Amino acid sequence: MSDLPSGPIAVVGCGLIGTSVALALRSHDLDVRLADASAQHLEQAVALGAGRPLTDDVTPVLVVVAVPPAVAAGVVTDALGRWPAALVTDVTSVKSRLQQALAEVPGAERYAGGHPMAGSERSGPTAASASLFEGRPWAVTPTSSTLPEALDVVVDLALNLGAVPIIMDATAHDRAVAVVSHVPQVMSSLTAARLNDAPENHLALSGPGLRDVTRIAGSDLGLWLDILGDNARDVRAVLEDVRADLDRVIAALAQADASTLSAVLESGRQGTRLIPGKHGDAPSRLDSVHVQVADRPGELSRLMTDTGQSGVNIEDLRLDHDLGRPVGLAEISVAPGLGDTLVAALTERGWTAYR
Amino acid sequence: MSDLPSGPIAVVGCGLIGTSVALALRSHDLDVRLADASAQHLEQAVALGAGRPLTDDVTPVLVVVAVPPAVAAGVVTDALGRWPAALVTDVTSVKSRLQQALAEVPGAERYAGGHPMAGSERSGPTAASASLFEGRPWAVTPTSSTLPEALDVVVDLALNLGAVPIIMDATAHDRAVAVVSHVPQVMSSLTAARLNDAPENHLALSGPGLRDVTRIAGSDLGLWLDILGDNARDVRAVLEDVRADLDRVIAALAQADASTLSAVLESGRQGTRLIPGKHGDAPSRLDSVHVQVADRPGELSRLMTDTGQSGVNIEDLRLDHDLGRPVGLAEISVAPGLGDTLVAALTERGWTAYR
Repeated sequence: MSDLPSGPIAVVGCGLIGTSVALALRSHDLDVRLADASAQHLEQAVALGAGRPLTDDVTPVLVVVAVPPAVAAGVVTDALGRWPAALVTDVTSVKSRLQQALAEVPGAERYAGGHPMAGSERSGPTAASASLFEGRPWAVTPTSSTLPEALDVVVDLALNLGAVPIIMDATAHDRAVAVVSHVPQVMSSLTAARLNDAPENHLALSGPGLRDVTRIAGSDLGLWLDILGDNARDVRAVLEDVRADLDRVIAALAQADASTLSAVLESGRQGTRLIPGKHGDAPSRLDSVHVQVADRPGELSRLMTDTGQSGVNIEDLRLDHDLGRPVGLAEISVAPGLGDTLVAALTERGWTAYR
Repeated sequence: MSDLPSGPIAVVGCGLIGTSVALALRSHDLDVRLADASAQHLEQAVALGAGRPLTDDVTPVLVVVAVPPAVAAGVVTDALGRWPAALVTDVTSVKSRLQQALAEVPGAERYAGGHPMAGSERSGPTAASASLFEGRPWAVTPTSSTLPEALDVVVDLALNLGAVPIIMDATAHDRAVAVVSHVPQVMSSLTAARLNDAPENHLALSGPGLRDVTRIAGSDLGLWLDILGDNARDVRAVLEDVRADLDRVIAALAQADASTLSAVLESGRQGTRLIPGKHGDAPSRLDSVHVQVADRPGELSRLMTDTGQSGVNIEDLRLDHDLGRPVGLAEISVAPGLGDTLVAALTERGWTAYR
């Protein structure tokens, strides 16, 4: 599997991402050496089988820096200086600032940035998993001075971890994550913030749409402050475009201007169609089938079995419970054209299913 | 079950909502009479067993108006005049405008509004289900002149359909749905609209967070234009509060003002905690467990079976596929404190599970 260079690979930073990288590398039997400013995190990562502690007598051929954004530039600089033959990468969410900080650093040609699009609501080594990166995009961001072997090693690292490497420069990366990740985060927070003004019985009217939009607003505050601060310029530029559209919507509502309102909503509809679907396929509209599921152990299992026997493959699945009733609504997404087939098959097996 | 008055119940409008109401009433063996401006819709609803056509010789005791918002006031007025003893309700998403239109109508004391918080991506009678309202909130909006028996009948209607009636006045209702439904819809559209500016390879970095926030932006355009137009004043007021927060975020990003940024994000976090949880319980943070699921028929079924055997009840479930790999990530939500138990049980059964 591995085209990674033979020799020790150092993982500096044993949080969720670092420990997950280390566990995945260990599953390929590579020689992984771990370091962390926290003795407890290091100990936990070692205990999980993520590798052995990095000691002074070890000379790594590859260093993966997985420390918080605020200290990443310093740790990468240190690694480039300490091991003059090592290739170095990192995993932070914003790339331009870090690259600028490294521009004048001796050995920077041995560095290429990386950003795995994976995470969890939990943090720390105990939340780590060798499979965290399976199927996830992994942005790889070389600088203008990056050596080909430094770029190659980050691509190979991503591939070894089951991720999908996507090479782009740091500027493009930061603009991309502003649009697909950082601004959606802010929009979710802005939407959820309005709930604080509402009386409790108003919130009783909440439905699944609200839950979808506000879900990520519950994420870790400190991490997002760092990310938004590091990518402030790109996030601000996109938010200014949002504000221009928002102003148009507000004016359109005041003037009963349906055509402007329609244009903004239609632009949103078009935007949703651009989001890549499963397996990197072109985006497609799946058929949705809704099924009533009693809130009893075993019901979902029975539903999955019956769906499997219908011969229709599940592309996506979600279950939402609602207030007041011991029943949930499962939404099963299947390939376009198969929705009616599944409804018929489930109805025949006694389920209440509809599209 | 039914405390509904005996005698024919007329359902005027055989779209998704009207036909679903009719099917649910038929399941209680009530005498349901159907009308629709479209002969085809009426025919389909009758064929589905939703009731018999409404004829001139029938005098309904209750009329449920389930027509598009633009014509609802006219149809309610007509029903009040045509059947001077009937109680009348409707199901439109915005209530104040309709009430104003009915204020001077003779017989308006026999009217109370209603708004079931349920729907589907599809429309029309063939998408209907007797279970559409199970566990869903159903806002009931009496006017100042509504007779007690008119209010009671709408509450009984909601209960008979398995919904949770929530009585509020029209003004409060419209403010509530602006916050919990209409503004989230606009925010989702504004977020998705930005994707149109991004090059295709930028969108390759899309993750589940983006999909959550932009999911409802794909909804029916015409319906939302009507809803936003009808509730323009309340939606605008909330959007102006959003704009004030957005301005603060943009200024904070320009000035590296972390404390303002933190305040807005924290307000969003608090807002998410106010959303009612399952079964109308107080909102609670569930434990999330992530499980790798191979993209093969039967895998989800096996996961559900193994989860069931662990004795841990699934509170919520979602499955997300990602590009490039034949593997999906299931996120199982369980009661607080049970996440680690489930991880251990699934790991023992050979799954890659983590929190």
